[in-house]
Amino acid sequence: MTSFNPPLPAAAPTRHPSWQRLQALAAQGQLHLRELLRADASSPSPNTGRSQRLQLQAAGLRLDARHQAVTPEVLDALLELAADCQVGTQAQALCRGEPVNSTEGRAVLHPALRAGAMPNPPWGAELAQRIESELGRFLAAAERLRSGHWLGHSGQRITDVVNLGIGGSDLGPRMAVAALESLACNAPVRVHFVSNPDAWALHRVLRPLDAARTVFIVQSKTFTTQETLTLAASARRWLHGHGLQTPAQQAPHLIAVTAAPAMAAQQGYRSDHTFGFWDWVGGRYSVWSAIGLPLAIAIGAQAFREFLRGGHAMDQHFWTADAAHNMPLLMALLGIWNRNFLHCPTHLLAPYPSRLDAFTRFVQQLDMESNGKSTHLNGDAAQVSTGPIVWGGLGIDGQHAYFQLLHQGCHRVPVDFIGVEQEDTPLPLAAEHHRVVLLNLRAQALALAVGRDRADTEAELRASGLSEPQVQALWPHRRFAGNVPNSTLWLPALTPHALGALVALYEHKVFCQAAIWGINAYDQWGVELGKTLAKAMEQGPAPA
Amino acid sequence: MTSFNPPLPAAAPTRHPSWQRLQALAAQGQLHLRELLRADASSPSPNTGRSQRLQLQAAGLRLDARHQAVTPEVLDALLELAADCQVGTQAQALCRGEPVNSTEGRAVLHPALRAGAMPNPPWGAELAQRIESELGRFLAAAERLRSGHWLGHSGQRITDVVNLGIGGSDLGPRMAVAALESLACNAPVRVHFVSNPDAWALHRVLRPLDAARTVFIVQSKTFTTQETLTLAASARRWLHGHGLQTPAQQAPHLIAVTAAPAMAAQQGYRSDHTFGFWDWVGGRYSVWSAIGLPLAIAIGAQAFREFLRGGHAMDQHFWTADAAHNMPLLMALLGIWNRNFLHCPTHLLAPYPSRLDAFTRFVQQLDMESNGKSTHLNGDAAQVSTGPIVWGGLGIDGQHAYFQLLHQGCHRVPVDFIGVEQEDTPLPLAAEHHRVVLLNLRAQALALAVGRDRADTEAELRASGLSEPQVQALWPHRRFAGNVPNSTLWLPALTPHALGALVALYEHKVFCQAAIWGINAYDQWGVELGKTLAKAMEQGPAPA
Repeated sequence: MTSFNPPLPAAAPTRHPSWQRLQALAAQGQLHLRELLRADASSPSPNTGRSQRLQLQAAGLRLDARHQAVTPEVLDALLELAADCQVGTQAQALCRGEPVNSTEGRAVLHPALRAGAMPNPPWGAELAQRIESELGRFLAAAERLRSGHWLGHSGQRITDVVNLGIGGSDLGPRMAVAALESLACNAPVRVHFVSNPDAWALHRVLRPLDAARTVFIVQSKTFTTQETLTLAASARRWLHGHGLQTPAQQAPHLIAVTAAPAMAAQQGYRSDHTFGFWDWVGGRYSVWSAIGLPLAIAIGAQAFREFLRGGHAMDQHFWTADAAHNMPLLMALLGIWNRNFLHCPTHLLAPYPSRLDAFTRFVQQLDMESNGKSTHLNGDAAQVSTGPIVWGGLGIDGQHAYFQLLHQGCHRVPVDFIGVEQEDTPLPLAAEHHRVVLLNLRAQALALAVGRDRADTEAELRASGLSEPQVQALWPHRRFAGNVPNSTLWLPALTPHALGALVALYEHKVFCQAAIWGINAYDQWGVELGKTLAKAMEQGPAPA
Repeated sequence: MTSFNPPLPAAAPTRHPSWQRLQALAAQGQLHLRELLRADASSPSPNTGRSQRLQLQAAGLRLDARHQAVTPEVLDALLELAADCQVGTQAQALCRGEPVNSTEGRAVLHPALRAGAMPNPPWGAELAQRIESELGRFLAAAERLRSGHWLGHSGQRITDVVNLGIGGSDLGPRMAVAALESLACNAPVRVHFVSNPDAWALHRVLRPLDAARTVFIVQSKTFTTQETLTLAASARRWLHGHGLQTPAQQAPHLIAVTAAPAMAAQQGYRSDHTFGFWDWVGGRYSVWSAIGLPLAIAIGAQAFREFLRGGHAMDQHFWTADAAHNMPLLMALLGIWNRNFLHCPTHLLAPYPSRLDAFTRFVQQLDMESNGKSTHLNGDAAQVSTGPIVWGGLGIDGQHAYFQLLHQGCHRVPVDFIGVEQEDTPLPLAAEHHRVVLLNLRAQALALAVGRDRADTEAELRASGLSEPQVQALWPHRRFAGNVPNSTLWLPALTPHALGALVALYEHKVFCQAAIWGINAYDQWGVELGKTLAKAMEQGPAPA
């Protein structure tokens, strides 16, 4: 393995004085968010200090982190920690193509996939050229499908594309197609996703489809993923059962996307229907590559390039903004504060636009597969808590389900709310829908932060006409501890550009946290043991 | 409020000697699951002891909890805790209709909804009669829709039903319709669900529908739920825009399900299109009531009654099986062990059949809204950790996403795996799909329990041809701590009866845990503050 020069942080961050300082600050006890917000409001200089420092803009997105339980002193110490851990230097090493995924001896270059014609790319002009060439190939295929020039074996145009892939070959494009529904719902080709090898998952999608007008995209980085190959075999059997019996008949209905094109060729996929990517693209970072083909089919080549541009705009911000105004870095540092100093084991994502329903699952993989590690890069067992458990789902649905626990349970769960400022639904009452959504988002973000103390709760109960014994019996059940740290991310609208920026924002956040924790965000050896045991069971008798 | 006679536990369970004993057992340190399983395998009496006690059958379901980190001594202490907390007595009080939801002064009687013609019901024959009468009414409506006798305003038969409801008025029926897809996919009427007031959520469902053939079911216990009424107003506007302009034209297209029929009547819903339930049915326990109407439409009256029978079969088991063989109680006690003594803050649900995709969200609400409390019934602040964060999703998809963190992250996350023994998909390769699914489930359950220690990891790396320096550099990144407690629940097949038993199983588990923690599982005051603040914001200027 190449060694870094100068050597990069690969061990526990606890050795830095900034870490010690943060521990001391946390031990002092924090003010309740109620007090922090009150102080913000009465600050003589609202344009400096806490409130100002916790509101950032980048690549069209707006972060409002004023409900985070940090003081300016904490923010300073966090920024010092980022400097101590050389987060910026590590970002540069990544872009130069150094093998930062050291346990696999690989570079990590997904930002190159969205850089377009960036001048003097740090990964070199030749790689940029190869990326543009493959991008052009798969976007052309998307446009041929959309325009009806890609024909099925019997000369009919294609109406449905079914993506077969799991994990990184599913979550990214699935999330993005749903998020960009305002474009995808008018696409000339419908795009479907099947990830789970359970037969019902495939059956429910295939049932209404016409084989002569259906194309399958088989996505697998290695082209050995058992689940995806099971689905692909069944899909080909389905084509066969619908009269497409020869390889020549099936060929126009099969596309492969893989970093192992030879494997695809062996299994009979035509090279002009095979689109590639590279070993330096991790599955969870692959939506920017040919793995994004289903997205390109759903929204078109031009909008796909807009999605890439949104991601690149966030890259530019991340690479150039100073630390104090760097949105991914600030989100990462607030996460570190919540995880390592306020000891919150989980992190909730609550998007409010229903089109972002799949975004939580996407970030769940991105974050947990990257930072769900407990070994520092130097091989030491982790001496700090690493990646949190990321969970959640649509905000308003959550309000009627698990938000009870956020408000009154035994857990402190930091929240990322996500809102969209402009909506564009073609329904007559769309404005009223949107008003209800925004009102709920804002009310929850405030309620979690400020809570309702005993005195206010008693006053409220008295005002509702309860007797004093009833008030005394009930207030403990009706008070709210509050003090739940939360941020709100605002997108101007759910456009390809804004979505690209949002995805890249979370990618960089995850990178910064790994850089501070001194872990490798780019391997995933944790998937190995289950596969090994499955293989052993397949060969031996299954344990009961 | 009625007081219990004899007074029931309403305070911290820490006062019981059994709690102290469990603390002492936990402090002793537990054997690694690897050792526990090795000892099980070499036990001279495999039919007694740990292994035997951790395998139970009930109502057709099979629980395999051998991968839980408990010894027979721990199991004994847990059972003693259940006795100390009078879990059985509390279950009886519930069935007698006592106001066990004491902060709202209400009874909790959802088991009565699925008891059919049970002899001598503890809640009385009169109530049983009222339940059967309302059940008959809404099942008849479901059959009229299915048979085509329920006609739209222009005399056409109904092809699509859209359920408008959120939280308990959505998650239960939505989950059950998806789980019973083998029946629902052949239904003469398609059933859709819209819960989120975001306009896209409604638009995406309405877009392809024909208003003259569509019926809306508006579900709200109070018929004041802002989100649902926003959707209902928009739905009526959509009917209006498609030529159904008078109340008389709209009436055949509108059904209300509510515990406040007068509110529905006020809003113009016809009384013969209004189906009722009662204040003693909590939203998250309401799928057994008229809230289940969309399920009845999707699977038919007979299958719906099978679903009820499955729930009742689990009730009978819960009420009559002795503590040591009581499946809901054992699941609850293992959860208490993991939560309070092994200090695991979260709990993962990993169903492997894709039709159970929505089951995790359903249990999330059931568990977290019930036990996300931090006040004992007597008003004391909770002195023990209460309900865990419940999260997860389909198992095989999780393997390619967040399972990395389960295997190698900093968290210990207890898992409930859920499998189905028999599959019934009409695909030629269904057996191969099912084999892959089961193999993965079993391999993950084993891998999480046993892990792979340093020696085995080094051996594996050497066997793969790595040099000794490489082995030494890599083993820390490729070992697996294991020791993750997990259980597997096996359903014989995804039938209405098995699903009913599964839902009731989790309901009783949640009940038992609340009974031990001394909290009220049946209120949800935590939803209140957000609503209050939203109302205030609606009237005043919204905070930025």
